[in-house]
Amino acid sequence: MFDSLWKNLTAATMSAGNADFGIINNAAIGIKDRKIAFIGSIDALPGAPEKLSEYVYDGEGRTATPGFIDCHTHLVYAGDRAAEFEQRLLGASYEDIARAGGGIAATVRATRAAPEDKLFRLAVDRLRALFFEGVTAIEIKSGYGLDLETERKILTVATRLRDEADFRVQRTFLGAHALPPEFKDNADGFITLVCEMMKTLAAEGLIDAVDAFCENIAFTLPQTQRVFDAAKELGLPVKLHAEQLTNMGGAKLAAANKALSADHLEYIDEDGVKAMAQAGMTAVLLPGAFYYLREKTLPPIDLFRRHKVPMALATDHNPGTSPTLSPLLMLNMACTLFRLTPEEAMAGMTRNAARALGWMDCGVLEKGKNADIVLWDVPHPRNLCYGFGHNPCYGAVMGGDWHPADHE
Amino acid sequence: MFDSLWKNLTAATMSAGNADFGIINNAAIGIKDRKIAFIGSIDALPGAPEKLSEYVYDGEGRTATPGFIDCHTHLVYAGDRAAEFEQRLLGASYEDIARAGGGIAATVRATRAAPEDKLFRLAVDRLRALFFEGVTAIEIKSGYGLDLETERKILTVATRLRDEADFRVQRTFLGAHALPPEFKDNADGFITLVCEMMKTLAAEGLIDAVDAFCENIAFTLPQTQRVFDAAKELGLPVKLHAEQLTNMGGAKLAAANKALSADHLEYIDEDGVKAMAQAGMTAVLLPGAFYYLREKTLPPIDLFRRHKVPMALATDHNPGTSPTLSPLLMLNMACTLFRLTPEEAMAGMTRNAARALGWMDCGVLEKGKNADIVLWDVPHPRNLCYGFGHNPCYGAVMGGDWHPADHE
Repeated sequence: MFDSLWKNLTAATMSAGNADFGIINNAAIGIKDRKIAFIGSIDALPGAPEKLSEYVYDGEGRTATPGFIDCHTHLVYAGDRAAEFEQRLLGASYEDIARAGGGIAATVRATRAAPEDKLFRLAVDRLRALFFEGVTAIEIKSGYGLDLETERKILTVATRLRDEADFRVQRTFLGAHALPPEFKDNADGFITLVCEMMKTLAAEGLIDAVDAFCENIAFTLPQTQRVFDAAKELGLPVKLHAEQLTNMGGAKLAAANKALSADHLEYIDEDGVKAMAQAGMTAVLLPGAFYYLREKTLPPIDLFRRHKVPMALATDHNPGTSPTLSPLLMLNMACTLFRLTPEEAMAGMTRNAARALGWMDCGVLEKGKNADIVLWDVPHPRNLCYGFGHNPCYGAVMGGDWHPADHE
Repeated sequence: MFDSLWKNLTAATMSAGNADFGIINNAAIGIKDRKIAFIGSIDALPGAPEKLSEYVYDGEGRTATPGFIDCHTHLVYAGDRAAEFEQRLLGASYEDIARAGGGIAATVRATRAAPEDKLFRLAVDRLRALFFEGVTAIEIKSGYGLDLETERKILTVATRLRDEADFRVQRTFLGAHALPPEFKDNADGFITLVCEMMKTLAAEGLIDAVDAFCENIAFTLPQTQRVFDAAKELGLPVKLHAEQLTNMGGAKLAAANKALSADHLEYIDEDGVKAMAQAGMTAVLLPGAFYYLREKTLPPIDLFRRHKVPMALATDHNPGTSPTLSPLLMLNMACTLFRLTPEEAMAGMTRNAARALGWMDCGVLEKGKNADIVLWDVPHPRNLCYGFGHNPCYGAVMGGDWHPADHE
């Protein structure tokens, strides 16, 4: 009846509308064709576990949650920025570093120079670290190429991670990430190139969604609209890096374009939040970048609550402002720094992260959803938020198959 | 000539007075009788590696550092405080939680109730997690018993971790950690008991050092002095939790008693720092507790620098204010939150942590020191500080023996 069956779990289903993480005690989960075919109390099973599946696993009372979905990452790049990190602590200013060719330009140079296979190996190592903390699906942005060849290389690596590593991946084209040196003082000209690259790479089947960075150090509202128009023509969903450093009105623009999400949002105002609510958008909060940049302005959590804008969380993994590979630490930082409740934080890494990507088939443990399930050595899901710099992952079911965490 | 020999390392010796982490490129390390018998450029070896040792290991260019020393932990306890963490985020005050029997009292109850073997198993799991991030020696405080039987149980577990897990451990008696419920309104009476317990447990060979918590929510200066006097009579070194929440003058008192260290120190003033400098003390900084408590007052790093007080770092692992098992995250938090340079942070987890414990035989990679060496998959030691929520540990030599990190 089932391909496999898990028993003896504390299942935190994270279903919408349920209080207390949607917990089912003494739960069983039956898996068929990579989907959840049964979830409920073991007493509700239509027979003895051993009669329902040849493969019966004993969860030994562990806590099961939906696989984590890291819905905002820049996973594919070469080089690191550790020397820059050190220089700043030794007193160098951002300007000093930019003059020396550092910052995002350094990562673009290294990524342009790296062969595809090297980029792939680096990204696989990062993906593996995320997986060992419970990530079973991920969004990956381009944006460290800023020319056709390198953007293609990055999106090809993201595609290979999907196909060769058998990982659920949303590939997001973020051509409008930063202005490359060859377009200095010609941002509009670069946006023209971005729209052309988007058309070419979409035709090659390399793009699932489109993102842009709308900020006073990046691109303007009209430039962002041009990117969104090009995406609309290609039938691609959009999202936006918005209000990270200033309130530019990017979230409102994203809402007018029916974007999936706006991300960062420390500086959004109530009008922006209302617009997001009306457009059915998700707010993607990135506490790792908030922490690393020592930002003092908090995203307006109470406004998101009041206007019922779902909040997602992600690592924002990138070499400049969030070099982290720990979704668990993001849960704790969301609680500690942003004062999310543990249930809000957990929903942010599961149900609402799926929503931010437009995915309807994952993010909760419910019948019919993908069998992406993580087992944790903790007595309750809130413990995942309470600790920091810890990893109680026992292993994960991904696409129905069991992968033990072979660390420890 | 050597029991074993490592070649092809980037060795960050962390020797005092060296700039840039004391790096030796293309280094070799020869080990004899659990000590470092040679460290230097491979060219300085008195012969071909294979002629000098039967066992030659290739570091493949990895970065080698001294084993991390976690010089301030409360590793032995039962129970967790995740429910409390959640309640606070749902709006409960500290007073609400205390009235409901929460806070430190909850950990004391759980620890008193736990059998020794259970405490041992819990502590071994925590020690293993620390080891997988490069910790090869540790300080462990008692203080969740607050009666003779339970303080003895905790210190016995710490002793078993030293002897059965073959781990370098300093066992610190922290009887004056908090006032147990049975001594409500009788702190002086409890200090009398603390001094008696100290005498008994020292006679049983269970104490290496003595600590106290001097704070407005804990014990006064005169009570602390009584604890120090008792320690002095037993010939035990002392240290102090001081100026964490207010400037009580604890660091000065500790200096007058020639303490090894004062720990926390967010509220210390320049007089306190000068007193520490004159007494040759080490400042132990605990960025995990600073982060978790959302403290806004920074420890005065510039004063420690100006008066040449060595700064150590530790996890302060405990279930209430720092439930972390990540020394690497402490390195990043020390840089990000306290603005230490990566070299200062690394010295804090190695050379100065040894100093905080009064240990002269570890904390640096030098001839004659213990062969406790960690290998990292990073190009430079500063990368250990730059990332957060990551773990590039490849494995460790502890007491001369190689232990691969078998996690990913």
